[in-house]
Amino acid sequence: MRTEVASLGEFGLIDHLTKNNDIRKAGTLLSVGDDAAVIDQFGRQSVISTDMLVEGVHFDLMYTPLKHLGYKSVVVNLSDIYAMMATPTHITINLAISNKVSVEALEEFYEGVYAACDKFNVDLIGGDTTSSLSGFIISVTAVGEVAPDKYVTRSGAKDKDLICVTGDLGGAYLGLQLLEREKKIYLENPGVQPDLQEQSYLIGRILKPEPRAEVVEWLQENQIVPTAMIDVSDGLSSELLHICKQSEVGCVLHEDKIPISDSARPIAMQFGVSVTTCALSGGEDYELLFTISQSDYEKVSKNSDITIIGYITDKKEGTNLETKSGNKHALTAQGWTAFAE
Amino acid sequence: MRTEVASLGEFGLIDHLTKNNDIRKAGTLLSVGDDAAVIDQFGRQSVISTDMLVEGVHFDLMYTPLKHLGYKSVVVNLSDIYAMMATPTHITINLAISNKVSVEALEEFYEGVYAACDKFNVDLIGGDTTSSLSGFIISVTAVGEVAPDKYVTRSGAKDKDLICVTGDLGGAYLGLQLLEREKKIYLENPGVQPDLQEQSYLIGRILKPEPRAEVVEWLQENQIVPTAMIDVSDGLSSELLHICKQSEVGCVLHEDKIPISDSARPIAMQFGVSVTTCALSGGEDYELLFTISQSDYEKVSKNSDITIIGYITDKKEGTNLETKSGNKHALTAQGWTAFAE
Repeated sequence: MRTEVASLGEFGLIDHLTKNNDIRKAGTLLSVGDDAAVIDQFGRQSVISTDMLVEGVHFDLMYTPLKHLGYKSVVVNLSDIYAMMATPTHITINLAISNKVSVEALEEFYEGVYAACDKFNVDLIGGDTTSSLSGFIISVTAVGEVAPDKYVTRSGAKDKDLICVTGDLGGAYLGLQLLEREKKIYLENPGVQPDLQEQSYLIGRILKPEPRAEVVEWLQENQIVPTAMIDVSDGLSSELLHICKQSEVGCVLHEDKIPISDSARPIAMQFGVSVTTCALSGGEDYELLFTISQSDYEKVSKNSDITIIGYITDKKEGTNLETKSGNKHALTAQGWTAFAE
Repeated sequence: MRTEVASLGEFGLIDHLTKNNDIRKAGTLLSVGDDAAVIDQFGRQSVISTDMLVEGVHFDLMYTPLKHLGYKSVVVNLSDIYAMMATPTHITINLAISNKVSVEALEEFYEGVYAACDKFNVDLIGGDTTSSLSGFIISVTAVGEVAPDKYVTRSGAKDKDLICVTGDLGGAYLGLQLLEREKKIYLENPGVQPDLQEQSYLIGRILKPEPRAEVVEWLQENQIVPTAMIDVSDGLSSELLHICKQSEVGCVLHEDKIPISDSARPIAMQFGVSVTTCALSGGEDYELLFTISQSDYEKVSKNSDITIIGYITDKKEGTNLETKSGNKHALTAQGWTAFAE
């Protein structure tokens, strides 16, 4: 019998393969199924997350500067650590490279890695570099620390909690569409130089995302403890559904509240997609999505970097999107599933 | 300018790329350049190691059962943790898979992963599964614990220390040659069924290596603290040179003392290679190579799993192999460098 991986989808596959995963250690506080795992080490807690980036699947070297790629490889992992309300401290990097990659290219990649380490105050402590028969593959593991039991999972959202998101959404998706369009034009007419200067915000969103470290710090300083948190790597819709599923709750998401950058609207129009679709299904924005108790409303509303976009309901109400015209639709996950085509 | 990665070699490349790697955290006790990194977390110490296995470079799915591959992916990382005299506790696994891999194939792979977790009492706590345009790529990170400052690095070997190795060497290399030969025969005559029953020891060495957990425990129980330790993944010669370089010492290795299994000799003869070459340059044996002070000689000599194969000298004596005929040769690293051809 042969079951195609695509028939389960990415999350279905992980659930399937880890359903028999035993926990043997008393110190394993949180295992597979959140942004990061939490292990108790001698009474203090560490957070661990890991991610893989594959050439041709997650990035295209034709328009991805290697320095940006190095930076991004690190920060997408740090984002997972921040999404636990933890502080990243160390990373390891494994690389598989084909012989078309030169030492100079790797130096550029590592420049980006070190820039991220500098900016977020983490140490690179190990890794493996090996050859690949095709393509550039990057695997990063990030370790962080958190005060005992102060980590925030995906599973604590409660009925009537408010749903918050940082920054704006959909930009990374549109940045990618711009790069893909320019690549096509370039391949057809190598003489035409792309002019993406005006779109630097959207391009930056996909090539050099920034994890929301400062929001985590702000929440900590203001003693706001989110009830659930996740980072937006696959699209708002998919991430909110993760929180609802793991917290066993429903939600109402207000379409008109979803934060969209001004640069996104005209470009979405050019591509004939709605900015809401970009935000819901685009992914790669690396913003933080979290829920707070209503009692924290006043404090949170003072931070202009955070937008309240809806509220949590009882599970039986389902997971809903309330459109600008006032209609309710069931939310569906259409994130960038790595396997569906 | 373009510098080929091959011109630096694997270790030269890592040195080159990490020469500007700053250590920012007081807790980073040991960084890039040993079997694993050591970080101080709240006064207790954690050990972290990571490794990548690439289809077509590190394994051939034509003769590697997926269950063995899952097992091996875990244990090669645990071996690095043991080589620090630490105890592994947790692992994460990232996989990149092409669409030729079915759910059933992944189930087999994970059976091996869980078997290793069970046997060595570690928890699988996370990972990422993504698609690959070609080939199966596995990246594992292992975390372990060690009592404060009880870890053993590569850099503590002292003049007159004894050089010890566990088990026997060269078997994995010969096992691989057998599998490669059978593959060739099969590709030429698909009707011929390979009969490798008699060579199960050598085949097992390459397909299902076992880390030397019990030797680490035995050393701990007997209060023997090696002065330096490394696991044999690239061949005895390369590993011993790592210890000598990082400890700033020389060595004399006695060819006639290198432990070779009885099954290895006739097969080495068939392939026309010397068993010494297999041990020195073969690699993948995952035995432990370590140095001890002479005062521990009596205790260590009681363990039949450990062989004393030479001694450490002053650096100016150089790194030498004393052959069976009594000649001295300079030791050279000819491990499986991932880039040299």
